[in-house]
Amino acid sequence: MSDFDTGLPSIRQVQTYTQDKQPVEIKLLTNDILVGTVFWQDHNCICLQDEGQQPILVWRQAIAYLKPKS
Amino acid sequence: MSDFDTGLPSIRQVQTYTQDKQPVEIKLLTNDILVGTVFWQDHNCICLQDEGQQPILVWRQAIAYLKPKS
Amino acid sequence: MSDFDTGLPSIRQVQTYTQDKQPVEIKLLTNDILVGTVFWQDHNCICLQDEGQQPILVWRQAIAYLKPKS
Amino acid sequence: MSDFDTGLPSIRQVQTYTQDKQPVEIKLLTNDILVGTVFWQDHNCICLQDEGQQPILVWRQAIAYLKPKS
Amino acid sequence: MSDFDTGLPSIRQVQTYTQDKQPVEIKLLTNDILVGTVFWQDHNCICLQDEGQQPILVWRQAIAYLKPKS
Amino acid sequence: MSDFDTGLPSIRQVQTYTQDKQPVEIKLLTNDILVGTVFWQDHNCICLQDEGQQPILVWRQAIAYLKPKS
Repeated sequence: MSDFDTGLPSIRQVQTYTQDKQPVEIKLLTNDILVGTVFWQDHNCICLQDEGQQPILVWRQAIAYLKPKS
Repeated sequence: MSDFDTGLPSIRQVQTYTQDKQPVEIKLLTNDILVGTVFWQDHNCICLQDEGQQPILVWRQAIAYLKPKS
Repeated sequence: MSDFDTGLPSIRQVQTYTQDKQPVEIKLLTNDILVGTVFWQDHNCICLQDEGQQPILVWRQAIAYLKPKS
Repeated sequence: MSDFDTGLPSIRQVQTYTQDKQPVEIKLLTNDILVGTVFWQDHNCICLQDEGQQPILVWRQAIAYLKPKS
Repeated sequence: MSDFDTGLPSIRQVQTYTQDKQPVEIKLLTNDILVGTVFWQDHNCICLQDEGQQPILVWRQAIAYLKPKS
Repeated sequence: MSDFDTGLPSIRQVQTYTQDKQPVEIKLLTNDILVGTVFWQDHNCICLQDEGQQPILVWRQAIAYLKPKS
C-alpha cells in the first residue's frame, strides 16, 4: 500500500477538510504551528493556504499532527 | 511485510486500546505529549480523540512512544 | 509512485517557481530559513541560488515547508 | 532484507535481552531515556515494560541507542 | 530511481566538488556545520576530509544542506 | 542497492575500523557523542563497545557522522 492511498481514512479526512474549507492547524517537527485551509494534497506535500492567502508547500515528512483549528 | 500489518503485535495492541476506549499518552518527536482515546489507525496516522472530543490526526512518523495514560 | 514524479502538483509547483525565478523561503527541520531562487530540483535535492548567487544543495529530507518569499 | 529479519545480530541481541529479562536503557531521539525490560519486539516497535510494569510501545523509528542498564 | 543514481544533478554536483577539491560546508540536522573537502560519496555516506585531514563519515540521512565554503 | 551492501565504501570503512579495533566517535542526531570500538555492524545497527566494555546498540537511523577518535 503506498503512503498516498486515497482509500486511507487519514487521506480522506484531509480531503474532507479540503472540501469543507475547514481551517486546520498543522504542527511540524520544527515545532512550528501552521494555520490555514488545505488547498490540495499529494504524495509528498499538503498545500496550505495561510491566512494571507499564500500557498505554503508543507512536506508530509515534517508533519507531527493535524487538527481542525480550535 | 508492510509497516501496517494488522498481524503485528504493535498494531494489535493499539487496536485493543481502541476497542477498550483506553485513554493513552502519545509522546511525539517534538516532545509534545498528546492524551486521548484512539479513534482509529491506518497506514500513516493514528486518529486520537482528545479530551475535548476533537480528532487529532497524529502522523505515525512523528511518534516516539505510546502507553496507557497513567 | 516515486517521490519525484513530475506529474505531482508539489513538484510542478516548485517547477513553476523555478521557471518564474520566484524568490522562495525554505524552512528546514534545523529551523534554518533559506532564501533564494530555485535553480533546479531532482529526486534528492532542491538547488537554491542564494542572494549571493551561491548554489546551496538542500536535501529534500530536511525540508519542513517552502513558500514564496513574502 | 527487511529491517526486522530475525537473523540480524541486532534483532537477536534484543531477543537475548528479552529472554534474560535484562533491564535495558533506550535513548530516544527526543532525548528521553526509557528504562525497563523488553516484553516483545516487532517490525515497528519494541514493547518495554517499565519499572511500574506498564507496557510502553516504543517506535523503532525513534530509537537512538539501546544498552543494558548500567 | 535509487537515491544514489549518478545521473542525478545533485550527485554530479557533489562529484564535481570532489574532483575540484572544492572546500564545502555541510549543515547537519544536529545543527553541526562540517567543513572540509569531499573525499568520496556512496549510497549511504559522504566521506569528508576535515581540515586536519581526518576522514569523517557523514550519514546522508543527517544532511540538511551542502554548499561551497564561503 | 540495499543500504547494507558490504561492497559500499562506507560499510567497508566501518569494517576496517572494526578489524583494527580503531576507537571511534559516533555523533548522534540527539547530539550525543558515543566513544568506543566497533564490535560489529548490521543492516539496522552498529554495536559499539564503550570504554566500560559495555555493548551499545546504536541505531543507524540516528547517526549523523562517525570518525576515528581524535
